Amino acid sequence: MRRFLTREELIHQIKIKKTCLCIGLDTDINKLPSHFQKTPESVVEFNESIIEETHDLCVSYKLNTAFYEAMGSAGWECLKRTIELIPENSFVIADAKRGDIGNTAEQYVQAFFEDLDVNAITLSPYMGKDSVTPYLNYKGKWIILLGLTSNEGANDFQMQPLTNGRLLYEEVIETSALWGSPGNTMYVVGATKTAAMKRIRRIIPDHFLLVPGIGAQAGNITSVLSNALSPDVGLLINASRSILYAGAGKDFAIKARTEALRLKKMVENSF
Amino acid sequence: MRRFLTREELIHQIKIKKTCLCIGLDTDINKLPSHFQKTPESVVEFNESIIEETHDLCVSYKLNTAFYEAMGSAGWECLKRTIELIPENSFVIADAKRGDIGNTAEQYVQAFFEDLDVNAITLSPYMGKDSVTPYLNYKGKWIILLGLTSNEGANDFQMQPLTNGRLLYEEVIETSALWGSPGNTMYVVGATKTAAMKRIRRIIPDHFLLVPGIGAQAGNITSVLSNALSPDVGLLINASRSILYAGAGKDFAIKARTEALRLKKMVENSF
Repeated sequence: MRRFLTREELIHQIKIKKTCLCIGLDTDINKLPSHFQKTPESVVEFNESIIEETHDLCVSYKLNTAFYEAMGSAGWECLKRTIELIPENSFVIADAKRGDIGNTAEQYVQAFFEDLDVNAITLSPYMGKDSVTPYLNYKGKWIILLGLTSNEGANDFQMQPLTNGRLLYEEVIETSALWGSPGNTMYVVGATKTAAMKRIRRIIPDHFLLVPGIGAQAGNITSVLSNALSPDVGLLINASRSILYAGAGKDFAIKARTEALRLKKMVENSF
Repeated sequence: MRRFLTREELIHQIKIKKTCLCIGLDTDINKLPSHFQKTPESVVEFNESIIEETHDLCVSYKLNTAFYEAMGSAGWECLKRTIELIPENSFVIADAKRGDIGNTAEQYVQAFFEDLDVNAITLSPYMGKDSVTPYLNYKGKWIILLGLTSNEGANDFQMQPLTNGRLLYEEVIETSALWGSPGNTMYVVGATKTAAMKRIRRIIPDHFLLVPGIGAQAGNITSVLSNALSPDVGLLINASRSILYAGAGKDFAIKARTEALRLKKMVENSF
């Protein structure tokens, strides 16, 4: 059975679990606790333990494909097996940042929505509408477009002022919001970009934002909440490294749970 | 032994082969000639025949990863095996259009420059400098940044006028050209964008352009040559579908050779 989660179902999960935490399973084979062998099989075992200890504390898992592609075809299999281990009520994001012309996008639809069967894929907007619509045509699945990213390089192009008075990331968000709806489109907005979050909320009051940059990248969770929380919550706040590598010993999964719980407590009184 | 090709070696190959043709091995398992089974193994066999019949007529092969990812982990293996079949004097491009923050980019470096061992990877510039530099730090390999793409959606953001007087794609090219050099950086410029090619050549007179959009996308090869040819040639002109699917029968590879030869003849008197 295919994996689908509507906007209403996602909001329901957030409300009953009292969390909008997304955990990034960006598992680096070289950073596994020392009692693991350095094999793709071990990455699946590691992920399984993390999922077991955290699935009640988060509503979403995000898998950055780079960490799996780095292990070749065995890594792709590892990606698929990890996704199969995630409970059906969790929103699964392939953080793939793809973006290509229409006939190629159709192939990525097959790879991510059919074969890997994730709920959502992250996409780069640079190639415009026809690089995005093939994903939107797949009923019940989601796209998450890069809006304003958390890294320093976001200043190079995303913050460029356009002659129409907008910054590039504002143009990207305002234009692309018309291609889909809050029911199939989210945006990546880095936690380090709190000043911009209010502007973004004015452009898209109803869309969910996927917010990376908490934890290792030092974004502030409280200011994210105060600037970007919407009546329907409208946020998936992601932490990856700070949870995955909270412990380096045999108790790594318990330490991961403790860190996930700490982040959950920071937001659970907000909704 | 790792696969490397310097700018000088690439130009040498272009001059002795009298071609700047790049063949896109964007092989769609559903479009294989009917005598093939629809398996990843068949895709490798198909690619092997295409490579055997065309490697003397082109200097480069480009593999769009989407077509392989659509087949799951077996597809990734198929991608790797196809790359291994390509002669060492050919410039191998992973058309992956990746783009992510630094620690993630390091994983893609491992996936593409180490494990798959391609000469070059295509990247989306949206996330800026720190999403690109990890690739440039790998000596002897290349990046190919999206500049102005061949699709209609290129008008959505790439053509946006900035307050500094440039269009976004011009800003992307002018800024990012300083991150690397003509010895490790190329740009994707669609064959359908001939009006812009002269402007681009003024910004980057020495960089190679990877030009898709010939053939199925109807770009004009003659106007590409007249607008963008540089003293060092500076062009890789790509054709994919028009070569791969030139024939649908058992003579598909001969038909592919005929089409590749036709394209080669159109450019061989230019340098």
